[in-house]
Amino acid sequence: MKQAPWINYRPEIKILDCTIRDGGLINGHMFEDGLVKAVYDTCVAAGIDYMELGYKGDKKIFAPDKHGDWKYCDEDNIRRIVGENDSPLKLSVMADAEKCDFKKDIIPKEQSVIDLIRVATYIHQVPTAVAMIKDAKDKGYEVTVNLMAVSVVQERELNEALDIFVQTDVDAIILVDSYGVLYSERVHDYIKQYIKAAKGTGKEIGIHAHNNQQLAFANTIDALVAGANRLDATMSGIGRGAGNCPMELLLGFLHNPKFNLRPVLQCIQDYFIPLREQIEWGCLVPYFITAHFNQHPRSAIELRAGKDKDEYVEFYDRWNEA
Amino acid sequence: MKQAPWINYRPEIKILDCTIRDGGLINGHMFEDGLVKAVYDTCVAAGIDYMELGYKGDKKIFAPDKHGDWKYCDEDNIRRIVGENDSPLKLSVMADAEKCDFKKDIIPKEQSVIDLIRVATYIHQVPTAVAMIKDAKDKGYEVTVNLMAVSVVQERELNEALDIFVQTDVDAIILVDSYGVLYSERVHDYIKQYIKAAKGTGKEIGIHAHNNQQLAFANTIDALVAGANRLDATMSGIGRGAGNCPMELLLGFLHNPKFNLRPVLQCIQDYFIPLREQIEWGCLVPYFITAHFNQHPRSAIELRAGKDKDEYVEFYDRWNEA
Repeated sequence: MKQAPWINYRPEIKILDCTIRDGGLINGHMFEDGLVKAVYDTCVAAGIDYMELGYKGDKKIFAPDKHGDWKYCDEDNIRRIVGENDSPLKLSVMADAEKCDFKKDIIPKEQSVIDLIRVATYIHQVPTAVAMIKDAKDKGYEVTVNLMAVSVVQERELNEALDIFVQTDVDAIILVDSYGVLYSERVHDYIKQYIKAAKGTGKEIGIHAHNNQQLAFANTIDALVAGANRLDATMSGIGRGAGNCPMELLLGFLHNPKFNLRPVLQCIQDYFIPLREQIEWGCLVPYFITAHFNQHPRSAIELRAGKDKDEYVEFYDRWNEA
Repeated sequence: MKQAPWINYRPEIKILDCTIRDGGLINGHMFEDGLVKAVYDTCVAAGIDYMELGYKGDKKIFAPDKHGDWKYCDEDNIRRIVGENDSPLKLSVMADAEKCDFKKDIIPKEQSVIDLIRVATYIHQVPTAVAMIKDAKDKGYEVTVNLMAVSVVQERELNEALDIFVQTDVDAIILVDSYGVLYSERVHDYIKQYIKAAKGTGKEIGIHAHNNQQLAFANTIDALVAGANRLDATMSGIGRGAGNCPMELLLGFLHNPKFNLRPVLQCIQDYFIPLREQIEWGCLVPYFITAHFNQHPRSAIELRAGKDKDEYVEFYDRWNEA
């Protein structure tokens, strides 16, 4: 019997850094090359498995004069940072259902340095996601599916979606707590449900947590303990609104000797402490309030952008009276 | 079978606000009366069970010209804030083993507005703590014992301490993660161990978590799920170093209708947002590093007070090379 299982590690666990992708939602995907390159070098040095650079956004929907390069992740722009990516680090992009012209903008794998396409979908877009999964697999990529905003998905619909996904060739299914609502018991239940659905298929289960209630790291650990092998995190927890699971905390927890914490601390010290002077993210009360009411954080993001950014009670009343 | 136990509540759960006590470790216990009164009024309005005002520090050890009133919690000073405390809120003070002249400074309950004496002890001070428990019970108080820095206590010694405490008249035994080291699995194990030791005695188990790894709230929930009924929290998570479990998050989680979140948000907005401009607390990287190495946060507190406060890598190396 294992007395202290936490001192060992599970070699199947893979970490995806989504610093540039999720962080890009704060600043219109306009990171300077120096920072993107630093995150890339850090991921390589830290033994992180995947780095997600941004979205494959449709330029017909998202005007290129209003967004940075990482909204589109054109091949040339990625290569500007990573060259031929001569490293063990795999590269990922996110493709949102209905916001990606995937047939055109996702090129065959043999022409791309990208390794993994992460299809992101809301529950009402599942058939589109299935088509995107097939397209990306046919083109030769690893593919995962991120079913977003799970805290507002009804249980029968979730089971149906999982049944559909396990019949595709997708490599992993990711639990996404978009609104930062979940607590440990619920994370545990969801992960067990996802694992049960995927049983015998070889598909992995993962988690993408948000930090609205200061639980992104805790929930990521809880998912891991429940059996999730794909874990998302970002440098200094950067990400839209309250942000994500902080990479430094996650690497501090993991015991696989292939991971190195020190390069991540260096990256935070050199790039993310200064960045915090320019853009805001983290566990602020308004993000907790939207999570408390199981809402998208957009109203909290708007609040924080205005002059009444610390008027918490009025913001709470607005939701409480709704 | 319960399908979603988290929508209900356990009426036995009691919350202790230790804002002024633990927050006082940042500023030499020199809070202005307006803030102390605001926290008191907030605790009453929010339905919180206990409010801890500070320490019963020995004036022979801690010079009164160097510390604020809440280092000593003299009866007159408490009454300056709470009068006769004509409210359901109970009042608490902490008495540190070997730092409290308890026989003299803890007066009989019938002369005091204090309801609860919290005896804090390190493992090597257990016999002193036992004497303090007896003294406070004899004087008519509720008494709990906080065994500090549990992450550096050997298992046999912990079991011995628990055996000793359950033979006293203490009302509750509190798990204290002074260094902010614990993760959910370990919190669960500890709480089960404490509950097992106290079985049949009617003594409650509690938790006091620290936020070094952004897990104070998560660990408090985990302790609750494992059976702990006494939970510590502070307004805006204030507390030494990384701080404590944020009260606003904890009340957002609890479903007992006697608790009210709104007054806590008002208190944070009015008092703790401005206070953050003056003093620092929260989940900063140096506090995570001391927790990572299972150390007291004092070296991180020193780092944050100096000009090299963001030199994380050098700080990490110092511990890593030790």
